[in-house]
Amino acid sequence: MNTSELVELAQQLRVDSVRASAAAGSGHPTSSMSAADLTAVLLANHLRYDFDRPAHPGNDRFVLSKGHASPLLYAAYKAAGAIEDGELLTFRKLGSRLEGHPTPRQVPWVETATGSLGQGLPIGVGIALAGKRLDRVGYRVWVLCGDSELAEGSVWEAAEHAAYEHLDNLTAIVDVNRLGQRGPTRHGHDLDAYARRFQAFGWHTVEVDGHDVDAVDRAYAEAKSTAGQPTVILARTLKGKGVAAVQDREGLHGKPLPEPDEAVAELGGERDIRIHVHEPPAARVLHAVRAGHLEMPRWEKGEKVATRNAYGEALAALGTGRGDVVALDGEVGDSTRAEFFAKEHPERYFECYIAEQQMVAAAVGLAARGWLPYAATFAAFLTRAHDFVRMASVSGAGINLVGSHAGVAIGQDGPSQMGLEDLAMMRAVHGSTVLYPCDANQTARLVAAMAGLEGVRYLRTSRGESPVVYGPDEEFPVGGSKVLRASDRDRLTVVAAGVTVHEALAAADALDRDGIQVRVVDLYSVKPVDRSTLRRAAEDTGCLLTVEDHREEGGIGDAVLDAFLDGRPVPRLVRLAVRRMPGSASPDQQLHTAGIDAASIAAAGKLLVEEAVVR
Amino acid sequence: MNTSELVELAQQLRVDSVRASAAAGSGHPTSSMSAADLTAVLLANHLRYDFDRPAHPGNDRFVLSKGHASPLLYAAYKAAGAIEDGELLTFRKLGSRLEGHPTPRQVPWVETATGSLGQGLPIGVGIALAGKRLDRVGYRVWVLCGDSELAEGSVWEAAEHAAYEHLDNLTAIVDVNRLGQRGPTRHGHDLDAYARRFQAFGWHTVEVDGHDVDAVDRAYAEAKSTAGQPTVILARTLKGKGVAAVQDREGLHGKPLPEPDEAVAELGGERDIRIHVHEPPAARVLHAVRAGHLEMPRWEKGEKVATRNAYGEALAALGTGRGDVVALDGEVGDSTRAEFFAKEHPERYFECYIAEQQMVAAAVGLAARGWLPYAATFAAFLTRAHDFVRMASVSGAGINLVGSHAGVAIGQDGPSQMGLEDLAMMRAVHGSTVLYPCDANQTARLVAAMAGLEGVRYLRTSRGESPVVYGPDEEFPVGGSKVLRASDRDRLTVVAAGVTVHEALAAADALDRDGIQVRVVDLYSVKPVDRSTLRRAAEDTGCLLTVEDHREEGGIGDAVLDAFLDGRPVPRLVRLAVRRMPGSASPDQQLHTAGIDAASIAAAGKLLVEEAVVR
Repeated sequence: MNTSELVELAQQLRVDSVRASAAAGSGHPTSSMSAADLTAVLLANHLRYDFDRPAHPGNDRFVLSKGHASPLLYAAYKAAGAIEDGELLTFRKLGSRLEGHPTPRQVPWVETATGSLGQGLPIGVGIALAGKRLDRVGYRVWVLCGDSELAEGSVWEAAEHAAYEHLDNLTAIVDVNRLGQRGPTRHGHDLDAYARRFQAFGWHTVEVDGHDVDAVDRAYAEAKSTAGQPTVILARTLKGKGVAAVQDREGLHGKPLPEPDEAVAELGGERDIRIHVHEPPAARVLHAVRAGHLEMPRWEKGEKVATRNAYGEALAALGTGRGDVVALDGEVGDSTRAEFFAKEHPERYFECYIAEQQMVAAAVGLAARGWLPYAATFAAFLTRAHDFVRMASVSGAGINLVGSHAGVAIGQDGPSQMGLEDLAMMRAVHGSTVLYPCDANQTARLVAAMAGLEGVRYLRTSRGESPVVYGPDEEFPVGGSKVLRASDRDRLTVVAAGVTVHEALAAADALDRDGIQVRVVDLYSVKPVDRSTLRRAAEDTGCLLTVEDHREEGGIGDAVLDAFLDGRPVPRLVRLAVRRMPGSASPDQQLHTAGIDAASIAAAGKLLVEEAVVR
Repeated sequence: MNTSELVELAQQLRVDSVRASAAAGSGHPTSSMSAADLTAVLLANHLRYDFDRPAHPGNDRFVLSKGHASPLLYAAYKAAGAIEDGELLTFRKLGSRLEGHPTPRQVPWVETATGSLGQGLPIGVGIALAGKRLDRVGYRVWVLCGDSELAEGSVWEAAEHAAYEHLDNLTAIVDVNRLGQRGPTRHGHDLDAYARRFQAFGWHTVEVDGHDVDAVDRAYAEAKSTAGQPTVILARTLKGKGVAAVQDREGLHGKPLPEPDEAVAELGGERDIRIHVHEPPAARVLHAVRAGHLEMPRWEKGEKVATRNAYGEALAALGTGRGDVVALDGEVGDSTRAEFFAKEHPERYFECYIAEQQMVAAAVGLAARGWLPYAATFAAFLTRAHDFVRMASVSGAGINLVGSHAGVAIGQDGPSQMGLEDLAMMRAVHGSTVLYPCDANQTARLVAAMAGLEGVRYLRTSRGESPVVYGPDEEFPVGGSKVLRASDRDRLTVVAAGVTVHEALAAADALDRDGIQVRVVDLYSVKPVDRSTLRRAAEDTGCLLTVEDHREEGGIGDAVLDAFLDGRPVPRLVRLAVRRMPGSASPDQQLHTAGIDAASIAAAGKLLVEEAVVR
């Protein structure tokens, strides 16, 4: 497109952003108007994308990191012929796929959900990594960012990662409209301030007038011809550009224009320009990683193995059997044992250094390109990426997360390193699966099972060694549990998972010596939970005792209650969990001090059977 | 101290780090040894600190951001005469206050818990902000960082914040020992790479040989004499410096030295140097902010007010009545209504821009200096700071967090903006308080009550207007609840909070028309929960229905169960919560679609009373 055509297209995008927001009665037209020229030039002259075949392997990928500018995105879809004007005007209405912030759940051209600022670039880095190191079909990744969101640290984790990996297939476009939600940004229109930062992090930078379509056109060409490093285009723009009543003015963020009809007239009226976006080049087959023989590791009963070791060995084996498996780690691969995978499959291993947000974002980006990521760090440090996990669930992204060093059982390192809130965090993620194995064979089976699930999958592993209690051919369906002890005289059910399974078995032995028979349930699938086994146990034994190496809120105790929250009778219940702030101590001392070791379980179980109040 | 004395002191710190780790059988001696010279010079020649009076207002503040180097910190305490050798050797043992990673819970010279990397500098910025803008007594803040942790985005949020606020009272010291946990860092010994980044962010930088005590001495002097911007000292060091068997070698992170006695000999043997750390200058009174008359806002019953508005008004009033109240916001003060405080008390308002980790870290730093912070953003975006909240609880920091725009009730903006996991996150924080008001008067009372609590306090507010249901003189004790409807014929108790209180009242009216009397409990204190009222309701009515604008895991439903997890009989229960992924829709449509509106409550309540299974 030539200059005047581009100008016209940009005005149409503005007009349609104003119209969509007006029809919705809400939305962010001014944030859309600032980036209209940037988007028009990209769409018309640079993006290679087949809207009829969004899964085309050669398609460029576009991420709207400033997700609130969704009217602009949907206006672009209309200009590209992907949606009709009638659908555009369903924006933000019940049942419309054109949500207030874009998600890929129903819109096939959206790569990832945005709306939590500072996430688009990190995820774009993940997509670009897939393109550069795995897919290798030459697609480019374009990420349109706001200037406000550059205050998020996650953006600089992404900047570091992208430059380190020489992602010259990645272009960040920053719509520097100088106004955040509540007022001016820190740096206003000082493009140099941003350029210095990106240059220091190893990026090529281009500064440009974001409303000069020819200059923008040249900037994109420069980005495409820059080799060996990612490019950021810093575009000086005006929020609300084109409508005097709102242009470059404060206090108008996230509001429809006060006089939309006048605004449309001021912008030159409605247009119906339809463009044919450049098609991607024909692409060869993707994911051409040779799969070998899948043979999961096996351990004999009674061996002592840490479940984190089993994770590492199982993942390495899964990677041999499946060519689409990739692994990520946050510079603790020697602890999580992701290093076992790295040794076997270095080409599919992504070292993310100590940047957990970027690690999860890269996993989301890799998953968006069809890869099967397993990302690991200490369970405690996954809290760093909570917002990215939350947004992954909004995307419906299929990612596997693994948290090692769960609970007080890690021992001397103390509370900063203990995952004690991870089950609560992961259970509350919509559509998630939460798994917590107690032995090596169970871990290996669950690592393999995770590959076939939807949504966010979480596996919790332990630092210390524990005895193998299951044979190598035992099966562990997701949503199931294992009854490890049962008799027809059971007066109590102890529900445990992970390290507390071994404590529960010892407690059951002790109580048996006291004449109290105890059922022991290994709740390796914390979500979904095995309702029928728990209900049967409740009916058979009358009362339940849960014990977990986790805070009392949101973990295994609460998961067990899920089985009884439908109006049926509820058994008598006691929950043992970590109620105090631990210090340093040996693993055994920690379990005892927290009141979740065998002795504590036996004591509480006895009280419960005797119908006393336990607190 | 002169050169040779400093060298000797540094060797003592190394020896004692080796000895403490050897006695513990775990710990990070090599990470301590790299920073021994940096620490010796700081302690002997630059730090102004009265170890007998850690609360002295003029004390400099030292933060060990690389918290795993705790042996070095405790060795420094010994050299400063604060602890004896016998206590040093209790390191990492049960009951010792010298934990694997430092916490201020029992050690008065520790400012904040560290051990989750990338948090020390952000919190140091908060302390430096207090020094610069509030305390104004000239103390300096010294933060010792590792090089690996510079990969954390939170470090760059802090770098941005510190330079923007011209914190020339802040010095970051980076121990660039080139080795992370599992191997080399991205930039190895390339000090320039780090210098470019910090310079771009507006910092003064000094590069130095971290084992040349004279050069380090000069670097600290340069930092102290640099005005208008923070300084970072980038120190080239060797991990395990001084012991050939471990110096600059991979694979030795977090392990005691293999031959500690030989290592001590190689380091010149044990020493018992005790130094007198420079005392701080006499300081004037701190916190000299004049308090005015405390008059909380009042609303009349039936008015329609959003609880976020009540938060803003209440906080502004509290700030007038209490001089120690400070407010922080993540560039959404017009939404959270923190702007009301900003308008009245600009000198005590901290704009953190879109950097939630830094916002919470700054709050922790301000609290460490005795200020009373209230930090607000959308509830959804507080997940970004989860790890900082977790670590705040390890510190025992007293901070108030406020999450606005809770739940699906926000309407059109969609799931990325909806706080649906925040109650689960905040409840699982050790020692936290979680409050969720349903009207304006209740909000104001709770905002005031939060000021008097310990630990992490969380208030959840709503975007939309709701009717005032309580009079302005009603009291709302933390840990209490309000029974809004009750009769002696109640057959069901509905437990609600926030927006669902109003839905529950409407449902009770509808059920009453059907001849079913319903008790309604407003559970404004989600943690701690009002066990006695819930138990009485269970005894009186036989069954409970909880309804919440939150995911089903970890929220109000689980909080209610806390009242019944001690072995007593449990009532029949049904939980209504947000089980699906919302899209865009109006607030009323959202509540209905999620199944948490009055009609849904009435339908579920009817089934429960009829003893049917509800699912």
